[in-house]
Amino acid sequence: MPSPESGALKVFYEKTVAALIEAPEIDLMLRRAWLDQVHHVTAEPTGVTYADADAGGRPALWAEPVAEPGDGVILYFHGGGFVLQSIASHRKLGGHLAKAANRRVLLLEYRQAPEFPYPAPVDDAEAAFRWLLDQGYSPAQIAFAGDSAGACLALSTVVRLRDNDLGVPVGVVGFSPWLDLESLPGTLDSNAEYDVLAQRPLCEESAAAYIQDTGAAADGRANPLHADLTGFPPVYLTASDSECLFDNGERFAQRARAAGLDVTFVVEHGQQHVYQFMAGRAPEADRSVAEAGAWLAARLSAPAPVHTVDGSTPDRRGEAPC
Amino acid sequence: MPSPESGALKVFYEKTVAALIEAPEIDLMLRRAWLDQVHHVTAEPTGVTYADADAGGRPALWAEPVAEPGDGVILYFHGGGFVLQSIASHRKLGGHLAKAANRRVLLLEYRQAPEFPYPAPVDDAEAAFRWLLDQGYSPAQIAFAGDSAGACLALSTVVRLRDNDLGVPVGVVGFSPWLDLESLPGTLDSNAEYDVLAQRPLCEESAAAYIQDTGAAADGRANPLHADLTGFPPVYLTASDSECLFDNGERFAQRARAAGLDVTFVVEHGQQHVYQFMAGRAPEADRSVAEAGAWLAARLSAPAPVHTVDGSTPDRRGEAPC
Repeated sequence: MPSPESGALKVFYEKTVAALIEAPEIDLMLRRAWLDQVHHVTAEPTGVTYADADAGGRPALWAEPVAEPGDGVILYFHGGGFVLQSIASHRKLGGHLAKAANRRVLLLEYRQAPEFPYPAPVDDAEAAFRWLLDQGYSPAQIAFAGDSAGACLALSTVVRLRDNDLGVPVGVVGFSPWLDLESLPGTLDSNAEYDVLAQRPLCEESAAAYIQDTGAAADGRANPLHADLTGFPPVYLTASDSECLFDNGERFAQRARAAGLDVTFVVEHGQQHVYQFMAGRAPEADRSVAEAGAWLAARLSAPAPVHTVDGSTPDRRGEAPC
Repeated sequence: MPSPESGALKVFYEKTVAALIEAPEIDLMLRRAWLDQVHHVTAEPTGVTYADADAGGRPALWAEPVAEPGDGVILYFHGGGFVLQSIASHRKLGGHLAKAANRRVLLLEYRQAPEFPYPAPVDDAEAAFRWLLDQGYSPAQIAFAGDSAGACLALSTVVRLRDNDLGVPVGVVGFSPWLDLESLPGTLDSNAEYDVLAQRPLCEESAAAYIQDTGAAADGRANPLHADLTGFPPVYLTASDSECLFDNGERFAQRARAAGLDVTFVVEHGQQHVYQFMAGRAPEADRSVAEAGAWLAARLSAPAPVHTVDGSTPDRRGEAPC
């Protein structure tokens, strides 16, 4: 049974659907302002400080635990269908994850669709990664995390970094990942009765805004369900079995396992999309953030990979770098 | 000359007017969401932590400097015409003030009009003050601050506390105070060309939403320009001479001086309404927040007043308590 507290997210999503989806004439500026309000369901994380940053040309926000944080950094990609939400909607969630992992978290304000379709967000993510390298972090000191479209962006960015021989992060966490830019049949339809927000029309509209005329909906550089997973670091995904996007994480995990990757897929029950927004308020969210944080901390605390003579970083599981 | 940086607030207000004031059919929920976005013009204050609170039945937010804060607390009332804005729009500004004063700041989420007209916000402010007393703070350890309608609420609450023999705070800071609930002629008209946001129609609409059928527009318990100022603590107000609401502060300062109060009125030039929102980004805002913070710190560091035998607190300037 879902906790009574976790219901507050459903209430916010119901208001969102009523205000925005049933009134499509509303200005994009106002939609974005409204979706930023999701932060109200998240408790303020105590013992966290914040600082603005310019991460390779894009605004970003550091969330740092007051308690001496461990080594390394988590680069966080917020969700919102590549169109909505921001650092502001996800600040508190980023703060909770920073505490759970005892690491600094950098939330990135990547450019958004429809003004900036694919590959602009991936360009910005790559620039932020390069900026972290310039700050003195090695790839072995960087982990990625994201929710919904932010998980898609995190995984697409791993593909980009690998293809560009920049090194890859030590691990990727995805909360309620949205990966299927083709909106294929599956839980998108079968869970439509329970999932208030992530309905087919919204997903199709968001995918169209992101992909536009690039023809990249099934391109592995944009859609992680089609990606070549060679050289991928460990991946930790979690979703609720009641979500429209549940099978996105499930399908990625199946492909990743088949490719011999270290992949974890944690299934929660009866929760809404990105139920981690309820951090500090509902036990399911707190448990999930704690577990993901512990996983990230373990990845960032793992012994540094041995560098080969030519400076490349062999994959820990012995797969050839791409 | 106003700094180039300070122009960002004008840009936000111009967008606000375009989005909301010229489109009056927009849902109040969306108006509130949009106005919360003003926080984007404020830099993230570094070295500040936050914590949710329940201040006498209303949500509130602690903003606390990481550097050991001094004794006492600042109770902050956000502006927004008693209708709009929130803890979220003012979190960063509250954090900057907390650092400037080196004190804990408590931002109060008082109930808002039109759902909750006068005196609901004053009731909530009184309840928050009583809650602070319950937390062990004496009135001599409590200062008030607020912007725009929040400055009106701060001063109205002093009237309420004095009338109810609860003691009064040691000082009140008001940024761009909005006090004239009658919308009398003056700078409201003569500065209309420069002031983008606080135009007569918005002020009249907000005052009507707050006062409704209570007939309190000229009642000194709601409108500080008509208040009996006996027993008032020192007051520090600041506004730009280019604001529609400039003469609200000026008129209060004149009345307060005539009543023998310790009142400071700092005049800035060429700035928009509540230019302190530009804290961390524009020099006028930084200077104003620094000066107000130093003033609050001095008030909170002043020797505690001598208590009389009957437990009442004689006014520092020798005026009889009311």
